[in-house]
Amino acid sequence: MRAADFAVSPKEAHPLRGRNPGETAGFRSKEEAREKLESDVRKLAQRQEVFFAARSFALLIILQGMDSSGKDSLIRHVLTGLNPQGVEVSSFRRPTEEEAAHDYLWRCARRLPERGKIGIFNRSYYEEVLVVRVHPGLLASEGLRRRAASPSFWSERYEDILAFERHLLRNETIIVKFFLHLSRREQAKRLLDRIDRPEKRWKFSLADIQERERWSDYQSAYEEMLAATSTREAPWYVLPADHKWFTQLAAAGILLERLVELPLRYPEPRPESEAELRRAKEILQRERDR
Amino acid sequence: MRAADFAVSPKEAHPLRGRNPGETAGFRSKEEAREKLESDVRKLAQRQEVFFAARSFALLIILQGMDSSGKDSLIRHVLTGLNPQGVEVSSFRRPTEEEAAHDYLWRCARRLPERGKIGIFNRSYYEEVLVVRVHPGLLASEGLRRRAASPSFWSERYEDILAFERHLLRNETIIVKFFLHLSRREQAKRLLDRIDRPEKRWKFSLADIQERERWSDYQSAYEEMLAATSTREAPWYVLPADHKWFTQLAAAGILLERLVELPLRYPEPRPESEAELRRAKEILQRERDR
Repeated sequence: MRAADFAVSPKEAHPLRGRNPGETAGFRSKEEAREKLESDVRKLAQRQEVFFAARSFALLIILQGMDSSGKDSLIRHVLTGLNPQGVEVSSFRRPTEEEAAHDYLWRCARRLPERGKIGIFNRSYYEEVLVVRVHPGLLASEGLRRRAASPSFWSERYEDILAFERHLLRNETIIVKFFLHLSRREQAKRLLDRIDRPEKRWKFSLADIQERERWSDYQSAYEEMLAATSTREAPWYVLPADHKWFTQLAAAGILLERLVELPLRYPEPRPESEAELRRAKEILQRERDR
Repeated sequence: MRAADFAVSPKEAHPLRGRNPGETAGFRSKEEAREKLESDVRKLAQRQEVFFAARSFALLIILQGMDSSGKDSLIRHVLTGLNPQGVEVSSFRRPTEEEAAHDYLWRCARRLPERGKIGIFNRSYYEEVLVVRVHPGLLASEGLRRRAASPSFWSERYEDILAFERHLLRNETIIVKFFLHLSRREQAKRLLDRIDRPEKRWKFSLADIQERERWSDYQSAYEEMLAATSTREAPWYVLPADHKWFTQLAAAGILLERLVELPLRYPEPRPESEAELRRAKEILQRERDR
């Protein structure tokens, strides 16, 4: 199981059609996967230490997927082991009035991780070619309704997003994009669960059902977006999402692979003179042994 | 071992003099404490779930202490188990030019946690009555050099800080302030360790030695600050810091106690009509069983 197994090729035709949301790569159960997940999460935390200290790269993780596809669980189970000092999670919901009055990259740009940090975008500017594509009425709040009529409107958005990401890549931001690929049937089960279990009931909204009715429109928007914006440097990884434990296992494995391949080193010591260092040591030793 | 054992009473005389940085409350070793720490960290993570969902309170954790007193380790070992989606760590270093051009609460106010989230300030506006008090020359960069001459300058800062915190408390921000109480001798050991161990060498700076030479000035500034700004609602907890494992154990215990006492409930379900819910369930069940 390698990162490349999940990556969408640039301009791939129908990147979802051939991929099975129920895939588990030979693992038969959550229990069977647990050990590997725990070990990968531990290794991630170890690797994060030098990643954080080196301040050579930033890591941007983007999560997209239908409601209940497991984005929150992924954050909770894969990223909880990391040192919170180096992690920033940003959840992008319906834009505020101030956000909507700017271009749609603005609010995300303000939340980009600095070098040494890991930023997680729970939804992102990709919503602008997903929910906005399925509901073009939303463009009115962006003050752009008229432009949406132009035939190149969506391809221009892809182009702008790719240019933005290219700029980030050139400035040492590693971009890892996860699409959580959920089947319609599994979503029905999860939404039913929210209705039936009292402690999950507050998460359920009738709006979820309305969005679900646009399922095939969303799948088309996803497929076109994945094909248009997966690049060699910033690929989309399609994570099978019908088994949350497998989604997490695949995500942890991919993140680890991407972090391990980075050339990371602890910073060089400050160039202090040997004489000064020796003097400092003498003072400290005297005070320690007093 | 209760939170109250570590709390500074309002206006307490010499809050550090009677407290032992080597205290371990009867625990004899890291190994002996490990089980309790792990269990408390797990319970913290559990409690965070409803804290996050309820969005009734924000939690602000402030960390202060000399260099190498264990602030970073505390974050790493106590707060790593939390869901990063609900945690924001802010490290306040020397102010940038933009920050210094504002009042000193400004940069911290911008990083306050919203309700449902836990914000950790690794250093904070308290530096303004600590490092700035020991090095009043720093006030020049705040454009305030002349005012510092006034006899009430520092007591006015305490007053402003208390008023700021009172405002936050009234708006459902819980404030937990930890002072990591390290002995001079243990600091010598830790700085020597940074010099001697290659993988820690980059953390050492000769400036650490210079700051250390002002040890007693810092202790005075700490004592006065603790006495002046510990309140019943937002107390300072003095954590013994000569044993990092005990600092972490005490911090986890205090945080857990403070979170457990909060009245937290999962949000009420949306007030959807029974008829609509029933219809939603029917649709979902049909699609699940197809």
